[in-house]
Amino acid sequence: METKELIAVIGGSQASADILEMAEQVGRLLAARDVGVVCGGLTGVMEAVCRGAWQAGGLTVGILPTNRVEDANPYVQVKIPTGIGTARNALVVRSGRAVIAIDGGYGTLTEIGYALAEGIPVVALASWEIGIDGKADSAINRAATPEEAVETALTLANL
Amino acid sequence: METKELIAVIGGSQASADILEMAEQVGRLLAARDVGVVCGGLTGVMEAVCRGAWQAGGLTVGILPTNRVEDANPYVQVKIPTGIGTARNALVVRSGRAVIAIDGGYGTLTEIGYALAEGIPVVALASWEIGIDGKADSAINRAATPEEAVETALTLANL
Amino acid sequence: METKELIAVIGGSQASADILEMAEQVGRLLAARDVGVVCGGLTGVMEAVCRGAWQAGGLTVGILPTNRVEDANPYVQVKIPTGIGTARNALVVRSGRAVIAIDGGYGTLTEIGYALAEGIPVVALASWEIGIDGKADSAINRAATPEEAVETALTLANL
Amino acid sequence: METKELIAVIGGSQASADILEMAEQVGRLLAARDVGVVCGGLTGVMEAVCRGAWQAGGLTVGILPTNRVEDANPYVQVKIPTGIGTARNALVVRSGRAVIAIDGGYGTLTEIGYALAEGIPVVALASWEIGIDGKADSAINRAATPEEAVETALTLANL
Repeated sequence: METKELIAVIGGSQASADILEMAEQVGRLLAARDVGVVCGGLTGVMEAVCRGAWQAGGLTVGILPTNRVEDANPYVQVKIPTGIGTARNALVVRSGRAVIAIDGGYGTLTEIGYALAEGIPVVALASWEIGIDGKADSAINRAATPEEAVETALTLANL
Repeated sequence: METKELIAVIGGSQASADILEMAEQVGRLLAARDVGVVCGGLTGVMEAVCRGAWQAGGLTVGILPTNRVEDANPYVQVKIPTGIGTARNALVVRSGRAVIAIDGGYGTLTEIGYALAEGIPVVALASWEIGIDGKADSAINRAATPEEAVETALTLANL
Repeated sequence: METKELIAVIGGSQASADILEMAEQVGRLLAARDVGVVCGGLTGVMEAVCRGAWQAGGLTVGILPTNRVEDANPYVQVKIPTGIGTARNALVVRSGRAVIAIDGGYGTLTEIGYALAEGIPVVALASWEIGIDGKADSAINRAATPEEAVETALTLANL
Repeated sequence: METKELIAVIGGSQASADILEMAEQVGRLLAARDVGVVCGGLTGVMEAVCRGAWQAGGLTVGILPTNRVEDANPYVQVKIPTGIGTARNALVVRSGRAVIAIDGGYGTLTEIGYALAEGIPVVALASWEIGIDGKADSAINRAATPEEAVETALTLANL
């Protein structure tokens, strides 16, 4: 047995087929590099990345908003039913050595904010851009493909 | 006695003199309208808005990240020492009928995300702009002055 | 305006008429001493203590498990809709200078545990007794009446 | 890959040599039954149960109070740095199909309360006894040995 390194993958509970395919590919690539996936444990991007990782033999951890393990998607191996609602978003990103954001809604925006506030590297695939008072903020690393997202995240996480 | 209506005011623990003056003015204006302020309870924008409200006779509520009431700024009347760290950001915005964001760092970004995710109106004074995949998101209401911010927030909150 | 001192009052969401009368009396007595009540904001003991305090002109704060202010009982003036479920139990006791436990179920037991762990004085009115490995634990102060509970709590809180 | 079943093991961060030996044995026995351990991730009983499970090839999950993975004991494989302090106690017990309490202080008492409130079976090894208003509460299952504790927990969890 050994300590498991995790990358957080965040995104919405609903997404287009293109986005879901990207998420599944991110999961496969992380598993191929022997790195686990931690996510919010529900549907959409969360389910796709877990499915990709699971099928490639990788570890999947789901930090659920509810207190019901039954709410986890079928590809979550380690289920943490927090019962603290979307306050669990902070826990998802803290559990990763880096964060890959794929598409996503306002919940994903909270997770990006938590990661940046705590110095956890963020890589975005078709996800949020932010700025303040007319100036773009470049703290989010942009990737064009799942391959680039995974390589950038692993490099920034020193994995 | 009666139920107290609250507006959440969010922003960083450090800010320029101009920003702090705007925050204090927002506090004064909310108190003049008999609406309380809820915030994160610490320094910077949080302290300035509480000082303005306190001096104008308004109610101030501080939802602290630590479990120490001593960490509240001196203008917080009702202190909630959560002990849950920045996961308390979700609680700050939920406690307001609307949110006024003034300047702010990544913690403020998490709070804007939580408010938008739950349909709580957000008014920004020199604060975050967001977009996804090249498209600006217009869900945040822009204000140019403390007066405009307060009027917009109260209108959106039906107060 | 001034800082408000709060005593946490904890107990179940359902209780007998005798228990509810004790809770209401505790609220009245705290208000008469110009000390506010903080509680979980729901029904039963929580509603009774708020009703007593409200009717005597005291401040009432409700730290709700849900993210809906509508879930507060009608006697809560300051509503904190946490959205973190029963993890909010920790926040209720931390917000008080002392804790008065009245009757109560297992949620009340978690609150007593949090208070004792953090050195917050606990006074019990017909509430939990605890021990470990055959030895009773005397950290909980026993009171026989609402008057005794309030006096003991205020003394232990240095109020 | 497959879903991992977890049992929560709770107890203090400091304990006697006898208690630590019991905790380590509980970890070994759970691993031998191919069931993972979830705990608070720190020292004392938490470290001992992880060490026993790790050495027997079992899975260990640590739900930490801080936001620092460095705070985990060296036998935690999956680290969840929550940053929500002792409010994470609720998450520890929810993540188990049953709970084994070994010795323990007031934090352990909060965890027993959460488990009982949510209908999660609790087995006690030299741990808390509770009662209310002079009547003992028999909801906690007593065990005399690590073997009995593990067998009882697995039976009650239908594992």
